[in-house]
Order: sequence, then C-alpha cells, then structure tokens
Amino acid sequence: MTDIPRITGVLSPVVTPFGKDLAPDPERFVRQCRWLLSQNVGLAVFGTNSEANSLSVEEKIELLDRLVAAGLDPARMMPGTGCCALTDSVRLTAHAMKVGCGGVLMLPPFYYKGVSDDGIHASIAEVVQRVADDRLRIYLYHIPPMAGVAFSLPLIERLLKDFPRIVVGIKDSSGDWNNTQALLDSFPGFEVFPGSETHLLDALRKGGAGCISATANVNVAAISRVIREWQGADADALQDGIARTRGAIQKFPMVAANKAILARVRDDPAWDVVRPPLRPLAAEAKAQLFQALEALQFDFGRRVATV
Amino acid sequence: MTDIPRITGVLSPVVTPFGKDLAPDPERFVRQCRWLLSQNVGLAVFGTNSEANSLSVEEKIELLDRLVAAGLDPARMMPGTGCCALTDSVRLTAHAMKVGCGGVLMLPPFYYKGVSDDGIHASIAEVVQRVADDRLRIYLYHIPPMAGVAFSLPLIERLLKDFPRIVVGIKDSSGDWNNTQALLDSFPGFEVFPGSETHLLDALRKGGAGCISATANVNVAAISRVIREWQGADADALQDGIARTRGAIQKFPMVAANKAILARVRDDPAWDVVRPPLRPLAAEAKAQLFQALEALQFDFGRRVATV
Repeated sequence: MTDIPRITGVLSPVVTPFGKDLAPDPERFVRQCRWLLSQNVGLAVFGTNSEANSLSVEEKIELLDRLVAAGLDPARMMPGTGCCALTDSVRLTAHAMKVGCGGVLMLPPFYYKGVSDDGIHASIAEVVQRVADDRLRIYLYHIPPMAGVAFSLPLIERLLKDFPRIVVGIKDSSGDWNNTQALLDSFPGFEVFPGSETHLLDALRKGGAGCISATANVNVAAISRVIREWQGADADALQDGIARTRGAIQKFPMVAANKAILARVRDDPAWDVVRPPLRPLAAEAKAQLFQALEALQFDFGRRVATV
Repeated sequence: MTDIPRITGVLSPVVTPFGKDLAPDPERFVRQCRWLLSQNVGLAVFGTNSEANSLSVEEKIELLDRLVAAGLDPARMMPGTGCCALTDSVRLTAHAMKVGCGGVLMLPPFYYKGVSDDGIHASIAEVVQRVADDRLRIYLYHIPPMAGVAFSLPLIERLLKDFPRIVVGIKDSSGDWNNTQALLDSFPGFEVFPGSETHLLDALRKGGAGCISATANVNVAAISRVIREWQGADADALQDGIARTRGAIQKFPMVAANKAILARVRDDPAWDVVRPPLRPLAAEAKAQLFQALEALQFDFGRRVATV
C-alpha cells in the first residue's frame, strides 16, 4: 500500500515500570524496551498491558521522549495513542508522528458505550485530519472485552476505503479466532495482528502480520521462533508450546502476572509494582503461577541478561 | 458528618456546548450554568451527559475556571473528576478543590475491567492522599452500564469506614432501583442521588438527597417541583409526569436528545453539536422526539429566557 517499511513480527505491549511512588520509571522502561528491540521485538508501548490507560497523556509523552532520547529506533515503535477524549488522541498521535514512530495503535474512544460505527468513524477521521501527516499509519486496536467498544467489519471496510494509506492494520484482541479469520479473509493486504499468540500459527498460515502479545514481555524467544519457523516441520509443536505457556499465565491477571515474572527473571522486585486500579499478585498466586510455568519448563533464567 | 453545607436537590450533568470546530464553547457553557443555578439546580459539570470523557483534563480545567471567573458559586458545583489515569484524577480533583467546589463526582478508573474492589479502593485512597485537602467531598459515581466498573456495597462500606468525612455520597446511575434502595437502607447519612428522576419520589421517601439527572438540563421545573412537593398530595402525579417525560427522551441517545431539545428551547442550533464518538440526532429522530414530547405537553417555550 505504501513505501514506508512496516512493523511486522512480534510486538510487545511493553509493561510500564513504576517507582514506589507510582510514578513511571523511565530508566527501567528504556532498559526493557532496549532489551526487547535486541530480541527483534517491536515496541507496542502504551497498550492495555502497559497500563497505558492508567497514565496521563503527559506521562506517555515523557516516556516516549525518553525512548527516543535513548537512541531507540522510533520506526520500531507503535505506541497506543487512542484515548477517550478526541483532543488527547490527537495530541498523542501528533507527538508520535513528530518523533517518527512507525505507527500508532488506536483504541476507539471507549467511555461511551453503544456508540454508532458512524461515531467511531468520525473520531478516527478527526484524528487523521487534525494530525495531518502523510506518514501516519494507524493500526486499529480491537479489544471489546476491555474497551466495550468495537471495530466492526463494516466499519473497518469504510475506514480502509476512506483512509487507504493511513489505516493499515489491526490488533485483534477480541479473543475470538472467528473474528481474526474474518479480518484476514475480508481485507487482503490489511495487516492483522492477533492480540495473543494462542492462534498465532493459524493467523500466519492465513497471512497474518505477526502478533502483539502481552506475554511477549516474558516469552519472547519462543514466540519469535514460531514466527521464524512457521513453515517448518515443528511449527505445530512450537505453537502448542507457546499456547500452553500463555494459558498458564492468563489464568492470572495479565499485567500483574507479567510483572511478577519480570521481577523474577530480572531479579528486580521493583517490577512488581502496578498502578491502581490494578493490584500486584498476592504471594500465593505468584507461587501458583511460577509452579505452573516451571511445570512447563519455562525458562526463568535466560532473560536475566540486561542490555 | 461535617459542617460544610451540602449540595442537595436537583443537579444537572450540564451538557457541554461545542463550536463547529468541536472546541468547547465557554460562553454558552457559562450561560447554561448560570441559568441552571438561577433555577436552583446544582452543577454536576463533567458528567457522562456532559461528554466529559470526550474532553481532555486541560479542557475541563479551562471550563471550570471560566465558570468561577464568571462569578458562579463553586459551592454549588460538583464536577466529575474521576479519570482512567490516577494522575489525571488527582490533578482534576485538586483543581476542583483549589477553586472551592462543593464536591466532586468520582468515576472509578474505567478502562480496566474485572478489577478488584481492592484496586478501586486503592485508586480512591491515592486520590484522597495526594489531594490532601480536608474540604474534599467525594460523591462516588456508580454507572456500570457506561463505566463497566462498579462501586459494590462492600466497597462503599469500606470507603465510608476509611474516609468517613470525605466519601459522603453517591450518584447511582445503575438504573436499578434495588441498588438505590440497598444504598439508602445500608448507609444512613450517606447522600444517595439517583442518576435519573425515574425513581426520584421513591428515593426521597427513603431519605434520598435529590437527583443528578441528564434531563435536568431541559426539564428543570418539573423535576424541582417533585423535590419541593414530595410530601404533598400531588406527589405521585408529579412523579408520574417527570417519569413519562424522561421515558420519552431516553428512547433516544441521551446527550444528543438533550442538545436537540436545548437547541429548540434556546432557538440556538449551535447546541446541536456533539463531539465524536457521539453523533447528533438525525432529523427524523429529532422530529419523533419532539412529537413524543409535545404529546406529553412538554413546554418548549418557557426556558427560552436567557440570564
């Protein structure tokens, strides 16, 4: 569709580290992002798993600026920029463009429920017109279980028709493989990222662009391997492995579970802090999570190395 | 519980006027608020019906400052200050206190679903501690159909125990009279405002503090009369009247319907503008709404007078 190189493969909605005062911790954030890039994982910062909606626009702008200032490649960044308020979405999207991000992940405005496709279309259209940047690449963020507002197939069709070079992809966190399949079947060339690795191989076989998954924070190597070797003889076994790991983790609240694993892997309890309304895992839940992962031979050691 | 005079009676989640460029229109906003105060209606600005969650924190601060600068009494204001992000809720609540607002209406952080009571408690606790103002009066905003996150009875009990002089009331927009009744029965002295006038008389008879209703933007006189005359012989007939009017309006999207009525009452089409993701009423819907209201002898004339 366009000549700008696209973000593909595995992306991580990077978990956001906080200090004891619940302020974002830019040093740890930069370190985690640098490490992910070194593993060839793209940076879907400010996703659901990043507690992005517990951060103010100013906090997100500051964190994004810190990544760029640290020399991380903005072309590999796809920050979440869709907010409830039109003016916030415009401000954050324009800033992402200003620093050269490869794309943005756009939630629909998510407070008002039962809104029309027409209303969501109008929101996206306003963002596109106000940001007014030819480089803008929007990936729709479809996550009805959290947002309570959806990007329907007819709405996507309309957005693709009206903004063909700008609306280029979607993260499908519906958790519904039928929806992912319908997206892949309906819109050839549209870059479809399942929001979890549970159906990654199925998606790749139908032309999926990769996946944007919370657990890419902690299970990078195994997920990346499925993407590299999806046409190989072991693909199904590899897929089975990452799906089982995902299954073990998602029995617990996803953000807290990821942070608990990171705290152990990095040997750094600071990672255990979440911002309200989320809560860290209780000791018992953490023990259960670790036990389940150990039973799956999850490697708690290999990601200790810091960059 | 405290010696600060309380906001009681009818409050309006004031609709926010926008210009053609979708920027808030402070002049019309001040005029509408002044008129509501002249009708003895309190100002629950930045509610759901105000499209508050389509406004940035900066836009809300600016509008609040304009009201105060125009000489409107902040003691009669109960701005909505609960945002998704802790830092936004703190900033907006602190600002409301700075300008002397009588209270704040606090949504729970509403992006993350399935959060624990403990997590919502932690959010409120952080706001209370960070704002650190003895004058702070929090009215919880319970609107699960929109927010997807609720203030449960056990959570309210805990908040009342931990913040007895600060958490003083609730707007119950559950639409479930059983919940309103349980609140009134469970927490004597807690100020319970039903989020609509549909069960206003029932609530008043059980000690309710008044109501905070979207339609108070357009049906002030009739709703206020129920509050003034709830012990009189005509109370049930008056209640029946406001419930029927409410029923006619809420067949349509509430914000757009209120704005359509205001545009007609004020003979000012500028009121018809909503911000995406909301959409204005189509001409046909507007005609149906007006017809239904005319059939109920709704008075489109009396509120033309501007202050």
